[in-house]
Amino acid sequence: MAHRLDDVSGPARLAGPEEGISQEELALAARNHGMPLEALRYEVTPPGLHYVLTHYDIPYADEGTWRLVLDGRVRQRLRLGVDELKAYPAVTQRVTLECAGNGRALLTPRPVSQPWLVEAVGTAEWTGVPLRVLLAEAGVESGAVEVVFTGADHGVERGVEQDYQRALPLDVALGGEPEVLVAYAMNSAPLPPQHGHPVRLVVPGWYGMAQVKWLRDITVTDTPFTGFQQAVAYRLRQDAGDEGEPVTRIAPRALLIPPGFPDFMSRKRVVRPGVVALEGRAWSGRAPVTGVEVSTDEGRSWSAADLDGGEDHRWAWRPWRFAWTAMPGRHVLSTRATDAEGRTQPLEQLWNRGGFANNLVQRVPVLCLESEDAA
Amino acid sequence: MAHRLDDVSGPARLAGPEEGISQEELALAARNHGMPLEALRYEVTPPGLHYVLTHYDIPYADEGTWRLVLDGRVRQRLRLGVDELKAYPAVTQRVTLECAGNGRALLTPRPVSQPWLVEAVGTAEWTGVPLRVLLAEAGVESGAVEVVFTGADHGVERGVEQDYQRALPLDVALGGEPEVLVAYAMNSAPLPPQHGHPVRLVVPGWYGMAQVKWLRDITVTDTPFTGFQQAVAYRLRQDAGDEGEPVTRIAPRALLIPPGFPDFMSRKRVVRPGVVALEGRAWSGRAPVTGVEVSTDEGRSWSAADLDGGEDHRWAWRPWRFAWTAMPGRHVLSTRATDAEGRTQPLEQLWNRGGFANNLVQRVPVLCLESEDAA
Repeated sequence: MAHRLDDVSGPARLAGPEEGISQEELALAARNHGMPLEALRYEVTPPGLHYVLTHYDIPYADEGTWRLVLDGRVRQRLRLGVDELKAYPAVTQRVTLECAGNGRALLTPRPVSQPWLVEAVGTAEWTGVPLRVLLAEAGVESGAVEVVFTGADHGVERGVEQDYQRALPLDVALGGEPEVLVAYAMNSAPLPPQHGHPVRLVVPGWYGMAQVKWLRDITVTDTPFTGFQQAVAYRLRQDAGDEGEPVTRIAPRALLIPPGFPDFMSRKRVVRPGVVALEGRAWSGRAPVTGVEVSTDEGRSWSAADLDGGEDHRWAWRPWRFAWTAMPGRHVLSTRATDAEGRTQPLEQLWNRGGFANNLVQRVPVLCLESEDAA
Repeated sequence: MAHRLDDVSGPARLAGPEEGISQEELALAARNHGMPLEALRYEVTPPGLHYVLTHYDIPYADEGTWRLVLDGRVRQRLRLGVDELKAYPAVTQRVTLECAGNGRALLTPRPVSQPWLVEAVGTAEWTGVPLRVLLAEAGVESGAVEVVFTGADHGVERGVEQDYQRALPLDVALGGEPEVLVAYAMNSAPLPPQHGHPVRLVVPGWYGMAQVKWLRDITVTDTPFTGFQQAVAYRLRQDAGDEGEPVTRIAPRALLIPPGFPDFMSRKRVVRPGVVALEGRAWSGRAPVTGVEVSTDEGRSWSAADLDGGEDHRWAWRPWRFAWTAMPGRHVLSTRATDAEGRTQPLEQLWNRGGFANNLVQRVPVLCLESEDAA
């Protein structure tokens, strides 16, 4: 009897009607985690609260012996230790990262994978060397079209054994806005293991799949990359046989801090009558966020929120505020962002088989009690 | 129509036969998180990888204005800022913490709550003031029996609105082994928000429910505490009507780092034939761990692992190693710890309605491929 990878590594599937979250999805949810939504209060997410998604295992990495190799269609191959990377002029950028699968577990039918609700997001100050500086030093040859990034995390996915790999088009890799970073620090400290220690890629405005962690190789190629994470995963498909469009930049999204206090088990919210200060943050990897609206009646009517910031940190979320006068009863709070190119968030799900790039508006059910002291 | 807390806050329940993980359980799993098991490689868990369980919301805390009050049956009430706590001689202890509900989602029937598999654990260096020092300064009056700890996190649970509160017997609170700490630092840094910033309790050897975070009040009482988290939750019950034994100290447990590499979706493991170095850690809050065994055949036979450490850090896990010669085929790896008082881990579940203190042995299914280069 043969023992093959297919024995442990199945095809993608959709959950059946009424099918609860499986033990396999739970195994992913127990190790990966979102950002608890009350952490939207922080402009920069404190360590440990930023969302984390690891495809395979967090690899062991020794900063002292780690080498990043840049090769392929370049005139001069580079081989750099972390200290050598730190010798380049450092650039620090505040960047909001979001998982491409954020919101997946709210879709019907539910794509079976990491079961995110809405909290797969976080913002950090990333410090590193601009990728274009390293590419200029290596000298990109004519005919180059893409840059492939290889991480050290190793696993199998739908039968394909692989190191995690993703590519960027050459113009994105060479561009200065957004400035793609080869980063070695997060919030002024060395990268934590789960965020790519000792070196990772940061591509502002792009979903998480582009942010290759535990970065070991950067390869300039003269043909488009057709690896698993580019050609099979992370594509927008209605049917399994579709070629599909690639997942790229982050669609606009606003989230609110669930107000009042929660029930432990249902996570439903309770407030008392009166003015409730609603707050949250909004971002888009496509174009700057220009407006945020709030609905307190399940999306039937919308009011503009006060939007701050946005000047200094193009690639980070912007804070917003809205004063809501809560009256006794049941309410559903929602918020939605609009960006400078007119993109906004749908009230009905935009479905695809991978559950990617889904920016359905958040729904926060709230119970307002009868009076100040009611319980 | 009345709007009451009962409308959002239901009774405890068990999942039905074949019932998948619910959206409510998923909402807890998406915000709380376990320690990815490959992080067992670290003696001290790096920030962000230590397990986190927040009952309600992570409260906002300003370290500058935070005050901890110690009162009740004492001669002199204390009111201490964080700087005042730091003025006492500091004690640092390495402590392994584990959630009382670790393993819950593997039980049949499954208690519906935070759905942990086996990874709700972590080890940190905690620094603070011994509780007994503060109690001595305040002067415990005769007739005192317990000490109640109140955190700042506020919510509702099974219809009861509450700040999180737990009590310790007076002898535990006054004891020096284990040394109960009022802690303000984790791994030499201020506490992160999710670990109780700016002040928390650390009770070595006890399950997580005793480790009150965001600590605001310490109250010495002359009657046993009957609050929700003491008298209703965290008790070992077979039937809902039982009074039940309280959950206290951590039962022995060993875990292994799943070897080889994983499939993304199933998290099943793949190795190639040959010697595989199995490693892991073991702990007990009852008595020191004295032995660890490994089984590679679903628990039919067991072999002793090499156990290290244990002299310097009584309240932290001990590392162990075992060389396994993997042959092609399917295997289930397990490990179990035994402590100095002869306690060990069961091969069949020890069930209670809360899913507490369950130390069923870990099962790690592994596929060994046919040969070195097989795929």
